[in-house]
Amino acid sequence: MIISQAVEYSLRAMVMLTQSFEEPVTVQAMAARGQIPAAYLSKLLQGLTRARLVTAQRGVGGGYTLTRPPSQITLADVVNAVEPLQRIKKCPLGIAGHATLCPLHRKLDEAMATIEAAFQATTLDDLGKDTGGPVPLCSTEPIVAINLKMKLPAVNASRG
Amino acid sequence: MIISQAVEYSLRAMVMLTQSFEEPVTVQAMAARGQIPAAYLSKLLQGLTRARLVTAQRGVGGGYTLTRPPSQITLADVVNAVEPLQRIKKCPLGIAGHATLCPLHRKLDEAMATIEAAFQATTLDDLGKDTGGPVPLCSTEPIVAINLKMKLPAVNASRG
Repeated sequence: MIISQAVEYSLRAMVMLTQSFEEPVTVQAMAARGQIPAAYLSKLLQGLTRARLVTAQRGVGGGYTLTRPPSQITLADVVNAVEPLQRIKKCPLGIAGHATLCPLHRKLDEAMATIEAAFQATTLDDLGKDTGGPVPLCSTEPIVAINLKMKLPAVNASRG
Repeated sequence: MIISQAVEYSLRAMVMLTQSFEEPVTVQAMAARGQIPAAYLSKLLQGLTRARLVTAQRGVGGGYTLTRPPSQITLADVVNAVEPLQRIKKCPLGIAGHATLCPLHRKLDEAMATIEAAFQATTLDDLGKDTGGPVPLCSTEPIVAINLKMKLPAVNASRG
């Protein structure tokens, strides 16, 4: 049981658009940086466009942008645009008398509800604010490590 | 994002074996009652056998039984035998410097961790003990409703 590749790729794309500071990003650029097959990414972006989370601008300097601030887009918005979180509303077996869920399906639905709530409570903006780890999709070394390296020669020089 | 059909079917099979009170159950019987294609169910039972959750007895009166009491089999045991809950241990993009998870992948892993914990904490026995709803896979009306119907004439008789 996994986070599907469609969901993973779509979230990567949305994070990249969040990081672009409203500058349009091309499919090619997102595919390269996000390690996503370009044709597959195009298809996913169509779904995100239909859900009105992203919009495309044609021509030179064109590309995709978010339609609203990342603080107003939740992980649930993205997931539901691509592969909806399926809650269990009624007995999947269609059994007579199962007007409410049996313990098995209630338990499975509770699991989905927990994920739904967590994803609804997290915006794309929240991911950027989160600290103490690497920045999503940024292929450089962590900023802390780079700063340390830059300071080291100066420390050595003052000791010498 | 859904509970896969393989997981759903496997849980149905395990619930039926829990309800059989150690009597062997044939693939055909489980397929019919659980609304599962028999060939698919056979394949899933092979996985559950490899995981040592069920065992098959051949011959007349044969069929599948659980290998240990349902109080010692968790939903996580069943799920992991069929389609393992995939936690995110390292950066799926293999990005240099991402020794720890970025906020995006930490959030996705947290969702998986929550489900894993819930499934580890629930045994097949727990599903049977759960009250207030229909019995899993039982195609009759709820027991409460049946009892009410049986008692009603007696109440009427005492009043009359």
